[in-house]
Amino acid sequence: MAQEKKLVEAITSMDVDFAQWYTDVVIKAELIDYSSVKGCMVIKPAGYAIWENIQKELDARFKETGVENVYMPMFIPESLLQKEKDHVEGFAPEVAWVTHGGLEPLQERMCVRPTSETLFCDFYAREIESYRDLPKLYNQWCSVVRWEKTTRPFLRSREFLWQEGHTAHATAEEAEERTIQMLNVYADFCEEVLAIPVIRGRKTDKEKFAGAEATYTIESLMHDGKALQSGTSHNFGDGFAKAFGIQYSDKNNQLQYVHQTSWGMTTRMIGAIIMVHGDDSGLVLPPRIAPVQVTVIPIQQRKEGVLEKAEELRAALAEAGIRVKTDASDKSPGWKFSEQEMRGIPLRVEIGPKDIANNQAVLVRRDTREKTVVALENLAEETARLLNTMQAEMLKRAAEHRDAHTYAARTYEEFRELIETRPGFVKMMWCGDEACENKVKEDTSATSRCMPFAQEELGDICPVCGKKAKAMVYWGKAY
Amino acid sequence: MAQEKKLVEAITSMDVDFAQWYTDVVIKAELIDYSSVKGCMVIKPAGYAIWENIQKELDARFKETGVENVYMPMFIPESLLQKEKDHVEGFAPEVAWVTHGGLEPLQERMCVRPTSETLFCDFYAREIESYRDLPKLYNQWCSVVRWEKTTRPFLRSREFLWQEGHTAHATAEEAEERTIQMLNVYADFCEEVLAIPVIRGRKTDKEKFAGAEATYTIESLMHDGKALQSGTSHNFGDGFAKAFGIQYSDKNNQLQYVHQTSWGMTTRMIGAIIMVHGDDSGLVLPPRIAPVQVTVIPIQQRKEGVLEKAEELRAALAEAGIRVKTDASDKSPGWKFSEQEMRGIPLRVEIGPKDIANNQAVLVRRDTREKTVVALENLAEETARLLNTMQAEMLKRAAEHRDAHTYAARTYEEFRELIETRPGFVKMMWCGDEACENKVKEDTSATSRCMPFAQEELGDICPVCGKKAKAMVYWGKAY
Repeated sequence: MAQEKKLVEAITSMDVDFAQWYTDVVIKAELIDYSSVKGCMVIKPAGYAIWENIQKELDARFKETGVENVYMPMFIPESLLQKEKDHVEGFAPEVAWVTHGGLEPLQERMCVRPTSETLFCDFYAREIESYRDLPKLYNQWCSVVRWEKTTRPFLRSREFLWQEGHTAHATAEEAEERTIQMLNVYADFCEEVLAIPVIRGRKTDKEKFAGAEATYTIESLMHDGKALQSGTSHNFGDGFAKAFGIQYSDKNNQLQYVHQTSWGMTTRMIGAIIMVHGDDSGLVLPPRIAPVQVTVIPIQQRKEGVLEKAEELRAALAEAGIRVKTDASDKSPGWKFSEQEMRGIPLRVEIGPKDIANNQAVLVRRDTREKTVVALENLAEETARLLNTMQAEMLKRAAEHRDAHTYAARTYEEFRELIETRPGFVKMMWCGDEACENKVKEDTSATSRCMPFAQEELGDICPVCGKKAKAMVYWGKAY
Repeated sequence: MAQEKKLVEAITSMDVDFAQWYTDVVIKAELIDYSSVKGCMVIKPAGYAIWENIQKELDARFKETGVENVYMPMFIPESLLQKEKDHVEGFAPEVAWVTHGGLEPLQERMCVRPTSETLFCDFYAREIESYRDLPKLYNQWCSVVRWEKTTRPFLRSREFLWQEGHTAHATAEEAEERTIQMLNVYADFCEEVLAIPVIRGRKTDKEKFAGAEATYTIESLMHDGKALQSGTSHNFGDGFAKAFGIQYSDKNNQLQYVHQTSWGMTTRMIGAIIMVHGDDSGLVLPPRIAPVQVTVIPIQQRKEGVLEKAEELRAALAEAGIRVKTDASDKSPGWKFSEQEMRGIPLRVEIGPKDIANNQAVLVRRDTREKTVVALENLAEETARLLNTMQAEMLKRAAEHRDAHTYAARTYEEFRELIETRPGFVKMMWCGDEACENKVKEDTSATSRCMPFAQEELGDICPVCGKKAKAMVYWGKAY
C-alpha cells in the first residue's frame, strides 16, 4: 500500500494545478520523455502506440474517400517557401534553417518543412496537365518542425507528428466540398473513436491558415475549460495555384487554375485525450483508441492455479478480439491496480483463488471504478459490452461537461464576466471586424475559436462595437 | 497500338543500358518524381503503397519478437553526435546542419539525424537503471538524411525512409542473439515476401558500421550482376554504453554496462524489387508485396454487359481477399495491358463478350506472360493459386540467376578475370587484412560484400597476398 500511494501521490491533483497534473500524467503514464533536444520530446511506447491507433483509424477513413499516401522531401528551399506571400509571412519566423550539407555551405538555405503546401504545389505544377489528372487526393504522414518559444508535450513542441492532406480540384465547388468532407472525417473520428465531442465551424480571417481562403476547424473543450483546436481543413481557392502556376487544360482545351485544399491532424490529439478524459489517478483511454484495453491482474498469484487461470482468461479475451495483457510481475496487486489506472487502461480483470472457486472474475472500469462480478463463461461477452458502454459514456460525459461549460453572452460586460470567471466557451455575436476580435483578445486574452456551422441568434448587434452582427462566434481561452 | 508502342518504347532496354532502364521504370511506373530539392525525391502513390506494405510486413514481424515502436527527435545536437568517436567520424562528413531556429542563430548547431544511435543512447542513459529495465527493444519508422554527392532514386538519396531498431541488453550474449535474430527477420522477409534471395553474413571490419563491434548483412544480387546491401544488423557491444554512460545495477547491485544492437532496412528495397524482378516491359511486383495484385481489364467494354461482368469479377476477387482493381477507363485494351505491365501488377484478368459467352476469363501472368483460360466459377481460386505460384517461381528464378552469377576464384588472376568479365558475386578466400581488401578495391573497384555464414573451403591461402586464409568472402561490385 505504501508503494501504491507513492505512485498516485506523485501526481498533482488537477484541481490544484491543471498544468502540473497534465505534465505529471504525461510522464507517469510513460507517454513521453524529455530529450536533450530543447523543445522536442521522445514519444515512448505507450504514447506511440496511441498514435499508431490514431493513424490506423484516420488512414482507413482517408482511403475510403479516395485519398492516396505519398512522401515529399522534408526540406523546402527558401525560394520555394517564398512563392506565396501570406504563407511565407506566416511561417518564415518559426522555421529551422539548414545552411550546411556535409562540410560545405549550401548555395541556398532550406528550411525543415513546417507544413508542405509549397512542396505539393511545386509537385502539382509538374504533375497536372489535363482535367483527366484531377482530382489529386494526396496525403502524407510525417513530422514537421516549428520553432516554438514555449513548448508543452504533445500540445506544442518544436517537432511533432501529423498527417497533411493536399488535394487539387478542377472547380471551386469541388474544393469546398472536399474541405468540408475532411473536416467531417476529423469530427466523426474524434467523436466515435476518441470520445471527444467537437464544435464544427469556420475560423475568422484573423485566425485562418496563412495563405488560405477559408479555414474550417473542429474545436474541443478540455477538462479545465480551455479550448483546443483539434483539426483544421483549409480551402485555398486558386491562390496557391496562381502563385505556383498550377494549371490544367479543361475539356474545351482552355487553361484553368486548379483549386486546392489541405487538412491536418497531429499528435496534439494525444494531449486532448489526456485533458478531456484524465482524472487524478492518471490517464483514462477511450476503449477504441487504447493500445491495451484490458489488463488481467492475478490476485495471490503464487497460489496454485491462479497464474494459469489468468493466462486462460487472457487467451479467451484475445480470442474474442480484445487487446489484452496479463500483469504477472512480482509487484503487489495494489501497485498493479495503480499502474493500470495511471496508464488509463479501460478495464481490469481481477482473478484470485476465491474468484476461481466461485467460477467468476471481477471487472473494474477505469472511468467510473464500477465493479462487475462476472461468471467466467460470460467474461468475453461482458468485457466487450463494458468496453462499448464505457466508450459511449465517455463521449456523453465529455459532451455534458462541454455543454455545462458553454455560456451565451448578450452584452460585452456579460461576456467579460463569463470569460473571466467561468472557464469554457462563451458564445457571442460578432460584426465581422478584426478590430473587435483584437479588442476581445486584449481585454480578456480569449480568442475567437470559430463561427460554428450551427449558428444561433443571440441578438442582432455585435456587443463589442454595437454594429450589426454577422455571425455568432465561440470564444475561449485556448491551448 | 501506336499508343501502346509509345508507352513501351519509352523504356530503354535493360541490356542496352541498365542504369537508364532503371530510371525509366522508376518514372514510367510512377513510383517517384524528381523534386526541386536536389537529391531528394517525391515518392508517388504507387511507390509509397509498396513501402506501406513493406512497413506492415516488417512491423508485424518486429512486434512478434517483442519490439515496441517509439519516436525520437529528428535533430541531434553536435555535442551528442560527437560522444562516440568512430561514429562521429563516420557520419559527420555527410550530415545536414541546422544553424538557425526562426530568426535566431542556435547556440549549438544540430544535424538532421543520419541515424539515431546517439539519441537512443542519450535516452537509454536516463531510462535504464536496473536489470528489471532490460531488455529495451525499441524501433522507429522515420526519415533520415545523408548528404550524398551522387544520388539515385531509392538506392541512394539525401533523404530516405527507413526503420531503425535499437536494443539494450544485460549481456553480450543476449545482444549477439538479438543481432542475428533481426538479421534473420530481414532475410526471411526478403525471401518470403519480396522473393529476393539473400546471402547472410558478416561484414569485414573495413565495411562495418561506424561504432559497431560487428555488422551483419544480407546481400542480394541485382539482374545486372551488381550486389546490393539489403539490410544490416549491428552488435555494438558496450562501446556506446561506455561513451554515453548507460549502466544498470544487476541482481547483485553491481553497476554494469549494457550491450546494444541496431538494425535497419530502407526504401532502398523498392530499388531491389525493381532490379531483381523487372524486365523490358517495366516493373514486376511479387504478389505478396504488390499493392494491387490483379487488374480486371474489360475488352470491348461498350458492348452490353461487359463492364457489369468486369465489376462482378472484381467484387468476387476482392471478396476472396485479393487486392484487385478494374481499369474501366476509355483507353484501349492494348494501352491498358501496357500500363498494367509497366506498373508490375502481377496478374490481369481479360474479360470480353466472347469470354462471357463461354463463361470464362483469360488470366495473364505478368512475369511469364503465360495465359490461362479459366471457367468463371473457378476464377477466385485459380487467381489465388496463380499468385502463389508466381510468388514461388519469382524467388526460384531470382535464386537461379544469383547462383548462375556466383563464381569461385582460387587465384587472384582468376578473380580479376571473373570480376571484370562476369557480373556477379565472386567467392574468394581472404587473410583478414584490410590491405588485401584495399588492393582488390583499387585493382577492380569490387568490395567485400560479406563473410557468409555458410563458409566454403576454397583453399587455405589468401590469393591476394599468399598468407594464411581466415575466411571465404563474397566480393562484388555494388550499388
